[in-house]
Amino acid sequence: MSDRTRLMYLPLGGAGEIGMNCYVYGYGPEGAERLIVVDIGVAFPDMDGQPGVDLILPDVAWLEERRDRIDGIFITHAHEDHVGAVGHLWGRLKAPVYCRKFTAIHAMRKLEEAGHDPEIVRVVEAYPQVIEAGPFQVQFAPVSHSIPESSALLIDTPAGRVVHSGDFKIDRDPVVGEPFDEDMWRQIGADGVLAYICDSTNVFNRNPGRSESQLPENITALVQEAKGMVVATTFASNIARLKTLADAGVAAGRSICLMGRAMQRMVRAGVESGVLTAFPSTVSPEEALDIPRENLMLIVTGSQGERRAASAALSRGKYLGHELAEGDMFLFSSKTIPGNEVSVGYIQNALAEKGVEIVDDNAGFYHVSGHANRPDLEAMHDILRPQILIPNHGEFRHMREHARLAASKGMRGLIAANGTMLELTGNAPGAVEHIEVGRTYLDGDAFVGAFDGVIRERMKMALNGMVVVALIIDESDEVLEDAWVALRGLPEVGSSGAPLQDLIEDDLARLLPRLDAKVIDDDDKLEESIKRVVRNVCSQEIGKKPELTLLVSRLMAE
Amino acid sequence: MSDRTRLMYLPLGGAGEIGMNCYVYGYGPEGAERLIVVDIGVAFPDMDGQPGVDLILPDVAWLEERRDRIDGIFITHAHEDHVGAVGHLWGRLKAPVYCRKFTAIHAMRKLEEAGHDPEIVRVVEAYPQVIEAGPFQVQFAPVSHSIPESSALLIDTPAGRVVHSGDFKIDRDPVVGEPFDEDMWRQIGADGVLAYICDSTNVFNRNPGRSESQLPENITALVQEAKGMVVATTFASNIARLKTLADAGVAAGRSICLMGRAMQRMVRAGVESGVLTAFPSTVSPEEALDIPRENLMLIVTGSQGERRAASAALSRGKYLGHELAEGDMFLFSSKTIPGNEVSVGYIQNALAEKGVEIVDDNAGFYHVSGHANRPDLEAMHDILRPQILIPNHGEFRHMREHARLAASKGMRGLIAANGTMLELTGNAPGAVEHIEVGRTYLDGDAFVGAFDGVIRERMKMALNGMVVVALIIDESDEVLEDAWVALRGLPEVGSSGAPLQDLIEDDLARLLPRLDAKVIDDDDKLEESIKRVVRNVCSQEIGKKPELTLLVSRLMAE
Repeated sequence: MSDRTRLMYLPLGGAGEIGMNCYVYGYGPEGAERLIVVDIGVAFPDMDGQPGVDLILPDVAWLEERRDRIDGIFITHAHEDHVGAVGHLWGRLKAPVYCRKFTAIHAMRKLEEAGHDPEIVRVVEAYPQVIEAGPFQVQFAPVSHSIPESSALLIDTPAGRVVHSGDFKIDRDPVVGEPFDEDMWRQIGADGVLAYICDSTNVFNRNPGRSESQLPENITALVQEAKGMVVATTFASNIARLKTLADAGVAAGRSICLMGRAMQRMVRAGVESGVLTAFPSTVSPEEALDIPRENLMLIVTGSQGERRAASAALSRGKYLGHELAEGDMFLFSSKTIPGNEVSVGYIQNALAEKGVEIVDDNAGFYHVSGHANRPDLEAMHDILRPQILIPNHGEFRHMREHARLAASKGMRGLIAANGTMLELTGNAPGAVEHIEVGRTYLDGDAFVGAFDGVIRERMKMALNGMVVVALIIDESDEVLEDAWVALRGLPEVGSSGAPLQDLIEDDLARLLPRLDAKVIDDDDKLEESIKRVVRNVCSQEIGKKPELTLLVSRLMAE
Repeated sequence: MSDRTRLMYLPLGGAGEIGMNCYVYGYGPEGAERLIVVDIGVAFPDMDGQPGVDLILPDVAWLEERRDRIDGIFITHAHEDHVGAVGHLWGRLKAPVYCRKFTAIHAMRKLEEAGHDPEIVRVVEAYPQVIEAGPFQVQFAPVSHSIPESSALLIDTPAGRVVHSGDFKIDRDPVVGEPFDEDMWRQIGADGVLAYICDSTNVFNRNPGRSESQLPENITALVQEAKGMVVATTFASNIARLKTLADAGVAAGRSICLMGRAMQRMVRAGVESGVLTAFPSTVSPEEALDIPRENLMLIVTGSQGERRAASAALSRGKYLGHELAEGDMFLFSSKTIPGNEVSVGYIQNALAEKGVEIVDDNAGFYHVSGHANRPDLEAMHDILRPQILIPNHGEFRHMREHARLAASKGMRGLIAANGTMLELTGNAPGAVEHIEVGRTYLDGDAFVGAFDGVIRERMKMALNGMVVVALIIDESDEVLEDAWVALRGLPEVGSSGAPLQDLIEDDLARLLPRLDAKVIDDDDKLEESIKRVVRNVCSQEIGKKPELTLLVSRLMAE
């Protein structure tokens, strides 16, 4: 530990990926800084990379070892990639959690579900209220995004002011929540900003940002022309969009029915927190059964093709008594997140088979992004004029482009991927340390490290299939009876036409009696010999090299 | 069998999906029609749906049962989703294969690799050459697409003319190959077209089609401005694009190096078939090592993010001695096929980490599609004026939209998904039969049916992990020793902190001595009892229900 005092920034998640946000700021003597955590989110697994995994969590081992130094966890907004891990990981950090009311409702529920006291969450007011957390003074500055009460964080330390943008866009008429307040932001930047840690999601989009308020007219016109039932899907947390959709339905003389638990929960949280006023009254799915389809509008979950959400259920058949038919309309008021194209395609094809008219956002009329496009990023750069710009909330290509953009405008652009600690103070701010950070998988109830090999083993079984061999070795090191074999995920019969299981058993029956005692005694050598036989047979018969699980029972003399 | 003569159409693949094209036309007495097959392609598996599978092939069981009635297999062009299965499936159909020269080179190689005589392929000339195949007279009418010598098929029968569009666009200046010949098409349509079976890929795209000839200027300007090495990727089979890229490199004073086997093979086939003339001379990857990077352009495979292709290898590090660096440029002269976004993203991020400038087609300057957009589809409808329009080469939503479009223009739009047989003759053309068609997986060297359960078993292992239990039951139906257990793809330790394997073994040791002889005697009941124990322990310890593989050895009295 040195006497030198410094301000540092360390992303544990969200830098080099879109999702799983978790950032650390530290201030104090080198190696003994006091710490705050900004966001503690999740990422979502897929069959390709994490089969069977339920959630991907940031690896907080580094933080856990220093948890006596954590003065607070600040959550910018209630999207899962920012708040989703608070229940799962809070027990390892145990610092107070700060957020605004709407976000707090979600954070508290998550803590409660994980068996923690929801009162851990301290509900705070927006800027200019100041939260004192060790050497940090933190303020929640309202920004527009696709969920209410999103905030940037103003983080003041003796070394200067850092602004953490959170997810944001510039929206002067966001339908729900505070409009962009340029005066406020000029005031925030007035005394100088040391570093701006800034959302990079849409840095490649050179179009001007579009306001949520551009949608109601288009959506209302669309719903008004519809003849049959109207179903609309969007992210459940996009409360402004829910309101736009519901208002459009009402304007067209339709009753509104919300489907999907997340949607109902979000609207409740909106009302409870006071951010949502004047939401049209809704009918339950059951009541909706009595309403003629041309007078009904369903607003449903599952815009990303999630298999268990309402959109997927409606595409497959009857859901809560409702069934779509020729002449109905299904509006995707959403964008498809990269990686979800195929799942969304399944739903759209199933709807097309039913004769449902599908309207999506390909033409740009029925959805706007919640993130700032490049011109709006530049507008914020120009208002805050930070000395250092650190891109986050982006894959590497987004961060790099954003850092380049910053450099072209005279700022110092610094790139830090997960695990790279930047010092923001001193003469040459930059990387000072690399922390080994992985990712933690929530698999059922268990935490599994991304590099533990558990998931890799699952993927190998999926790719190669599995042969199981069991053997008994008696007291005198002889193989008792024959080996016996089971196949999993493999064809029963190969090119010779004989059952694969029999062929392996026969070849093992020839091998085992000839094995040297030194091989039989040695688990590794025995497995090696057996694996060779299994792989030979399988290569020849089916052209594959399956995984082997060998169970050996060694009988002991009594 | 009736005496009634009819003309029928039966898609076995490609109708309701983009890929795995395989269509059957039949003419003759009902139930004894003579048949021709159009295209015999593959689809590509993914981890999500077909882990470990190498290729997806159409299910030709229906055709195989009727193979004495097949008068020919006609292949429209050399893309894998049209020709890819000819080697794997020809042995089950054994009919002559007809295609044009460039396509033939690929079909012959595939047949040869599968151990068949390449002379099965009969190389034919384009329209107006007529191939007699039973009651069918078939002509290959040149169309533009993203591979040379693509063709529509004119299929004449006593019942009238059917036009099978193949994959096509309208391109009056396609750089390589024949330009769109409106007079020829007017002549083809002049005597009336009964049915037009038509590519639906881009039916949702309302923009006018763009010509391949719009690219050279943009690409040349881009390459001319580049400072470091230039790497460009596109589909290897898009010979026109390879020429455009190579010409642009040469114009900028660069040597051209092709990387990736598919690319070299395609250029060779282009030259051999005579479709490609004046391709710039190239250097080998080894020779290229001596050329300064600012004078070099690599044209490489892997535009879809394929892990083993050159693009991926270059993004990871050194490949064939070449390594990308800050200041180099990487051009994706391609579109990302839905489902490949994540793989392509990996490569782009890895390149961004190296400081390589990435140029893709987001702005629409460096790629054009090989399929007709809606206005060009309409142009073809208007030229041919078919009585019936049958959309193919599309997912259900594309086919539906295309059929609607046709109906709006006064044609009869008929939708047939894979397995739906349409009769095209008679007073009310439409569906007459539904054939059970699945898909066949090539898994290693084995053919596995999509519904055999083999692949489902693999996916279950990947999602749930696997517990293996082995047991010995002696001559008197007693369990000998304890059961022994192995875990695969599961965490070693659960919530109690004890090893999961020990916990399962302990619980089984308590269960087994208490089991009734009736249970021990019965494999199913025994498995049921053991499964219950395994699942109880795992649910409690790790919150998961793994798959169980049980191996029982029953010792026999001697």
